[in-house]
Amino acid sequence: MLPTRNRRWVLAERPHGRNVAETDFRLDTAPVAQLAEHEFLIQTLFLSVAPVMRQYMLDGAGIERPLQLGEVMRGRGVGRVIASRNADFRVGDIVHGKLGWQEFAVTDGSPYFMMYKVRQRVAPYSTALGALGLTGFTAYLGLADVGATRAGDRVLVSGAAGGVGSICAQIARNLGARRVVGLAGSAAKCALLTQRLGYDAAINYRRDDVDQRIAELLPDGIDVFFDNVGAEILDTGLKHIRRHARIVLCGQIATYVDAGKPRPLYNHDAIFKRMARMEAFFIYEMAQHFERAEAALAAWIAAGKLEYLEDRLEGLEQMPRALIRLYSGENIGKQVVHVSD
Amino acid sequence: MLPTRNRRWVLAERPHGRNVAETDFRLDTAPVAQLAEHEFLIQTLFLSVAPVMRQYMLDGAGIERPLQLGEVMRGRGVGRVIASRNADFRVGDIVHGKLGWQEFAVTDGSPYFMMYKVRQRVAPYSTALGALGLTGFTAYLGLADVGATRAGDRVLVSGAAGGVGSICAQIARNLGARRVVGLAGSAAKCALLTQRLGYDAAINYRRDDVDQRIAELLPDGIDVFFDNVGAEILDTGLKHIRRHARIVLCGQIATYVDAGKPRPLYNHDAIFKRMARMEAFFIYEMAQHFERAEAALAAWIAAGKLEYLEDRLEGLEQMPRALIRLYSGENIGKQVVHVSD
Repeated sequence: MLPTRNRRWVLAERPHGRNVAETDFRLDTAPVAQLAEHEFLIQTLFLSVAPVMRQYMLDGAGIERPLQLGEVMRGRGVGRVIASRNADFRVGDIVHGKLGWQEFAVTDGSPYFMMYKVRQRVAPYSTALGALGLTGFTAYLGLADVGATRAGDRVLVSGAAGGVGSICAQIARNLGARRVVGLAGSAAKCALLTQRLGYDAAINYRRDDVDQRIAELLPDGIDVFFDNVGAEILDTGLKHIRRHARIVLCGQIATYVDAGKPRPLYNHDAIFKRMARMEAFFIYEMAQHFERAEAALAAWIAAGKLEYLEDRLEGLEQMPRALIRLYSGENIGKQVVHVSD
Repeated sequence: MLPTRNRRWVLAERPHGRNVAETDFRLDTAPVAQLAEHEFLIQTLFLSVAPVMRQYMLDGAGIERPLQLGEVMRGRGVGRVIASRNADFRVGDIVHGKLGWQEFAVTDGSPYFMMYKVRQRVAPYSTALGALGLTGFTAYLGLADVGATRAGDRVLVSGAAGGVGSICAQIARNLGARRVVGLAGSAAKCALLTQRLGYDAAINYRRDDVDQRIAELLPDGIDVFFDNVGAEILDTGLKHIRRHARIVLCGQIATYVDAGKPRPLYNHDAIFKRMARMEAFFIYEMAQHFERAEAALAAWIAAGKLEYLEDRLEGLEQMPRALIRLYSGENIGKQVVHVSD
């Protein structure tokens, strides 16, 4: 028996000039649409929340079509295919993609929906929204492929307490790194890095002299610099790169850059002098490597070599609260909502 | 009958605070040394001159042991093995390496001597000092391997009239590039680029507005930026890179950098925004690829798809003059001296 009614959160208000509030959303019910050719129906198992969502609520964040009032709130999730008119996605498949904040989603699997199959069976499917999803793939492919991390490497990670950064130390170690140092913006985050997230040492970039601390903690320099931040942090890290270092540009630098004229880079000559490589990548362009990344990460989880932090709320009703928790920093680890089994 | 007497140029004076003069060198004669185990004897066929040699004469250029007065002048050459107690180098082999300014050289083939076998038989052996030697390998491996130049690419080369730059356009084209633009420092050099060296267009960086000219000549941007210069030129080029561009750092930037605090880079955000890669390389670390590079370059020369410019003087006696010609800019193309057949 296929479902006929779909509960869903729609956008009710835009949070202009203020924080996101629960009243920005309205829970309603709509019929489940009939499937057209190539479409399939997904039952949502878990939904993700992400900081970018406030931007979606305002104007689309410049990368998406602006969301209209009354439309289903946008977001990624993991679900089970329960009906299909698409030969590539069969009933029973577990999939990741843009499901939206709702119990049932209809899609044709076109690129916009970021649909791919979840193949691992060793960890809860919620991990497809974190350590075994795009976050994990970004950390894994950034370190293993772009950064070519290998045995004996000394690794520096900025934004180390973030979604990607929080699993970088364990991944780097599993790839053979001898030492991994992380940068974060508070004493509490720094404690988390070394106590829970596998970092050998942490630097509080708001309080410490970053240049001096890198020199102390990585006295022989950096082989792989996984940078989620850019700007001053990138520049300071460059001073410490070793011969043939790889600098992986992964992250939030765009937010600095778009805010105005970017800060110049003073230590770029280290790239030339030390025969190094600095490279940016975009995870959405690496879909052909997702299956390999998932297999590697799942094997580490199964072997107890990759621990991940997840903060789970129960029930579709919790979606607005889950999002608001992100902005208040209440969550520890990836915030997900369990929608159905 | 092996030779017993070796004519050679030794350092007589150091050119402190002045140009190199013929009287800085003295031609003398010494016995040819007996071969110890692992040593072999090379008859010089061609010798190379290079701008760095004045530095050798002064202090070793910071990369070599300082040359002493009375020592044989240092330099690379190509020669024929005429006696050998080394199993890796046999009589008849043609080799490239640091032979010094002399008719006969004894070496044990250790890494310092940069010895490798010249395998191509399609072009004069003098090319082992230019288009079919380290210069050519630098251009080829920089474009093909580091730059991953491929069909349809738009290529910008700085220092395009230099040793490496002067063969970059033809190599890029042979790799499939659709358009190659070169930067040089005079109208005469720019004319050479387009008339003899295969460039589609040239920019005179001393006179033109480089930013504007790149925009005009490469309106869709740059896929591969082969940079021999660094500083402002690198920074300006970065503004024009395309998505997934490769910036190959090949060159003389070191001379800028060592002169003091390097100029900051303002347009580095393009690397992040356009998912690009910036990478430096050092040709002496790529010896395992020399045979492949030589084979590719030799095949293009044999097919008439790679023209090179060579300026040849006759006789060991000409060595000082050959070097002085470099500094006065009289030579067009690679300056070599023919020592014996």
